[in-house]
Amino acid sequence: MPGATAQTLRPFLWRAQTMFPDREVVSRTHEGIHRYTYAEYADRVGQLANALSAMGVEEEDRVATFCWNHHRHFETYFAVPSMGAQLHTINPLLPDHHIQYIVENAADRVVFVDPSLFEKLAGAYDEESFASVEQFVVMGEEVPDTELENVVDYESFVGAESAEYDWPDVSEEQPAGMCYTSGTTGKPKGVEYTQQMLWAHTMATLPEAGLDLRSSDVVMPVVPMFHVNAWGMPFSTTAAGAKHVYPGPSPTPADLASLIEEEGVTLTAGVPTVWLGLLDYLEENDADISSLERIVIGGSAAPKSVIRRFDEEYDVDVVHAWGMTEMSPVGTVAHLKPGMESLSRDEQYEKQGKQGLLVPGLEMRVVGDDGENLPWNGEDFGELWVRGPWVTTEYFERPEANEEDFEDGWLKTGDVVTVDEEGYVQIVDRAKDVIKSGGEWISSVELENAIMAHDGVAEATVVGVPHQRWQERPVAFVVPAADADESTLKDELVAMVTDEFPKWWAPDEVVFIESVPKTATGKFDKKVLREEYDDESLVEGKTPEDAAPDADD
Amino acid sequence: MPGATAQTLRPFLWRAQTMFPDREVVSRTHEGIHRYTYAEYADRVGQLANALSAMGVEEEDRVATFCWNHHRHFETYFAVPSMGAQLHTINPLLPDHHIQYIVENAADRVVFVDPSLFEKLAGAYDEESFASVEQFVVMGEEVPDTELENVVDYESFVGAESAEYDWPDVSEEQPAGMCYTSGTTGKPKGVEYTQQMLWAHTMATLPEAGLDLRSSDVVMPVVPMFHVNAWGMPFSTTAAGAKHVYPGPSPTPADLASLIEEEGVTLTAGVPTVWLGLLDYLEENDADISSLERIVIGGSAAPKSVIRRFDEEYDVDVVHAWGMTEMSPVGTVAHLKPGMESLSRDEQYEKQGKQGLLVPGLEMRVVGDDGENLPWNGEDFGELWVRGPWVTTEYFERPEANEEDFEDGWLKTGDVVTVDEEGYVQIVDRAKDVIKSGGEWISSVELENAIMAHDGVAEATVVGVPHQRWQERPVAFVVPAADADESTLKDELVAMVTDEFPKWWAPDEVVFIESVPKTATGKFDKKVLREEYDDESLVEGKTPEDAAPDADD
Repeated sequence: MPGATAQTLRPFLWRAQTMFPDREVVSRTHEGIHRYTYAEYADRVGQLANALSAMGVEEEDRVATFCWNHHRHFETYFAVPSMGAQLHTINPLLPDHHIQYIVENAADRVVFVDPSLFEKLAGAYDEESFASVEQFVVMGEEVPDTELENVVDYESFVGAESAEYDWPDVSEEQPAGMCYTSGTTGKPKGVEYTQQMLWAHTMATLPEAGLDLRSSDVVMPVVPMFHVNAWGMPFSTTAAGAKHVYPGPSPTPADLASLIEEEGVTLTAGVPTVWLGLLDYLEENDADISSLERIVIGGSAAPKSVIRRFDEEYDVDVVHAWGMTEMSPVGTVAHLKPGMESLSRDEQYEKQGKQGLLVPGLEMRVVGDDGENLPWNGEDFGELWVRGPWVTTEYFERPEANEEDFEDGWLKTGDVVTVDEEGYVQIVDRAKDVIKSGGEWISSVELENAIMAHDGVAEATVVGVPHQRWQERPVAFVVPAADADESTLKDELVAMVTDEFPKWWAPDEVVFIESVPKTATGKFDKKVLREEYDDESLVEGKTPEDAAPDADD
Repeated sequence: MPGATAQTLRPFLWRAQTMFPDREVVSRTHEGIHRYTYAEYADRVGQLANALSAMGVEEEDRVATFCWNHHRHFETYFAVPSMGAQLHTINPLLPDHHIQYIVENAADRVVFVDPSLFEKLAGAYDEESFASVEQFVVMGEEVPDTELENVVDYESFVGAESAEYDWPDVSEEQPAGMCYTSGTTGKPKGVEYTQQMLWAHTMATLPEAGLDLRSSDVVMPVVPMFHVNAWGMPFSTTAAGAKHVYPGPSPTPADLASLIEEEGVTLTAGVPTVWLGLLDYLEENDADISSLERIVIGGSAAPKSVIRRFDEEYDVDVVHAWGMTEMSPVGTVAHLKPGMESLSRDEQYEKQGKQGLLVPGLEMRVVGDDGENLPWNGEDFGELWVRGPWVTTEYFERPEANEEDFEDGWLKTGDVVTVDEEGYVQIVDRAKDVIKSGGEWISSVELENAIMAHDGVAEATVVGVPHQRWQERPVAFVVPAADADESTLKDELVAMVTDEFPKWWAPDEVVFIESVPKTATGKFDKKVLREEYDDESLVEGKTPEDAAPDADD
């Protein structure tokens, strides 16, 4: 058997550092703009690997990050997997009990944490869940005042180390990354990314049918690096030999506009909220974003108005994409096909507003209620199933979830879609109920459980209703208990939820109803409520300004 | 372990047939221009798989082709591997005894053969070598007069079959392709391509750093489909959803020009000779090749004059590439980097004239005599070693050749190269053709290029012949041009070379011959000359005392 050598990440960095040594990695940090080259970056990666080795991190160990997008976080991206260890990027926006659960579940040995997120992490800390953690490394030059032990600052951690590291030949089966996804029910589920999955995803996102990355590109991922590896862009940008720009902690629209202008960003990526914010900013402020060619929008559906405005006002192509944590994550990209240049603008926006065409290398099915494949006619809808070299086939230590979400090697995405005659996927519903707000998931099931725990509540359900800025906001539909004091119940429920969850999880509105509509099998039928409240009036003007997850830190 | 699904070829075709059903596959055949869509192509692939199944072909069997570039040959490209069988493309230009050897070595069960090549195959036929072959299928609608048994025409073979085939889940380890490489010595060596190698090669050639294939492209591989799968283009063009144009048997420059014009070819590929022929044709004939954007040149070094003429006269980018049968085959591609747009045209041609930058996903070393890694300074030269997911690590059933050509998972390419500070590889010689004189290497390729630049030379090659004192000395074998003055030519050539190179590089002898012996792939066959002149008489007493390199500095 002719055995070709392994599909691993390290050759991507090796190529960039040797063939594009002078291309830059630019980063907005707490300390200002930081700038170095691939050659210098590669040295730092070697130093970091030596530092981790020195403290005893070995192949197959897990190393966690709790960070925004910056060069130090990027250093962990190549150092950890190339040592044969596994990079576990933690979403710092999760509620404390989720953070505790996943640190314990992953048995992380080290946690890298941003200064601005340190308090959040320290707040989530408990001895039992964090028992595996031997070292906290703060992403800067100082250690904050803290009661936590074993805390060191990043620069002290790596500073004395050699840049030379004797990289092992890592198996392509070795898990290189890990990310937890918040499902609709129960605890977050871990997805492990093998070297091979990340390799294949990188190769798949480089060509036109993916994100069309070129060495001349200047790439700024606004999507957080704790969100499925910032959609793989730190890896793909390196493979292309392109320039990186990391926008750092909580970038404002002004920060983004200034980075685009000053660094000549050609390609950026993030959830719709970010781009709505940028459009608003650009209306009021002078900024030259003429270098920008493409914005990849994912995480939630890209509103057609955003696609249109970027095209008409700024000559920027919005590239609508869809994916999942389970898919490393890119699945579909809404490029126009040859021939479609003759369509009207509106027809083009129509196509670009869909989730798009499956990337080469993947396969998909649209599955009807009886398990049959549905036709691609733009009308029949069913659940989207996908499979391929960068789609996982299981969750980490969650056999009961595997049972539910996988079948015959296919991932049942939970998204209900139509596919048109030309193969463009459009998401029309979610099979599993989840609320997406500002690019982050809110578990309606967890909110429901919390609300129903209140004595004044007979039953309740939580539904996402459309919102212009945040895409969706949660609204609770509550059947008050017979003896409930309706005059105080609403405030009590919101206070209770705010106490337990990030404050942006709190429902924008609590509506009292007589009963929750039910399906034939007795399940809450949210579709009925969703249809009834399919407009913005319910939440308009009610969402607090800090409803966005990134306003929360 | 999260096991992602396999890396196999079939999803590429599935995507093209479902998402680009109307894009065309156009083919010049014995019978004229043939034209159908991906949807129709996919039906034919299903029919062919059923026909092969019906005659008993099973997973892991080998199916051979002996064909030029056309749609029927392309049908075998997806049908055979997607059944789980292995496509063995035979080079019909090989001498009979090599054909016999490889059919026997591969144990092919079926051979698909072009009408125009049938006589050649029948001439090579012998009962013993072809014992495994149960069926010959002639690529047309008729069977020629023949004494061979079990011959059927392709249309009868597939015509009655269903287009539906129950494709198996093929392992990514399953060999999908096979191609023999003619080394400089001994019998051809078989290289097997697993599904995974072809998948990875396809993904690697799609992006900018590869061949930059887009769905809007119209791709015409002139490089034969029996040459390492036409550099993988039938697969990559399909993955991109682009249009295929196959130029059929023995295309003339007029055929190529007409296909470019009529089909709107944007990207084509082949060896330099083809493009020299096209340039000559275009000088004398009217043809509109304005659709053409890029020509991939490989197989031999692209002369700078060809790069320049296509750029200046036709606004066509020559994309110089290098690869090997053992590499599926693409290894390096000579794209300009960001920033190089400000170089002068000549400086750009200089870079484009090199073999280029390694494609992402591969690794390389330049290895000196003592096994050390040589610096990338554009001067030090050593043997190029490569490894990666689409580079084989062994030959088929040739342990002794494996011993010689592989080490620690690296393929020793046999090419002697320099790499410049920017990572551009340049081949300066073949390790096996290299001339070693007084402990130093003399580049026969550079000498040949210099000598061929003389107006009095039609073609020339330089070979090292054994020498008692200096180990080897160069001898030039020259085919004089029709109008050359042979009485002065030798002296002029030696003077010219002495002017340009260290004087110990000057050939000890210049021998006039009628033609340079060539291999089946059209390369200079130095082996023949080396065997013919394998004694010292040619150079004895002729080498100057200062022939040693160290006498020169």
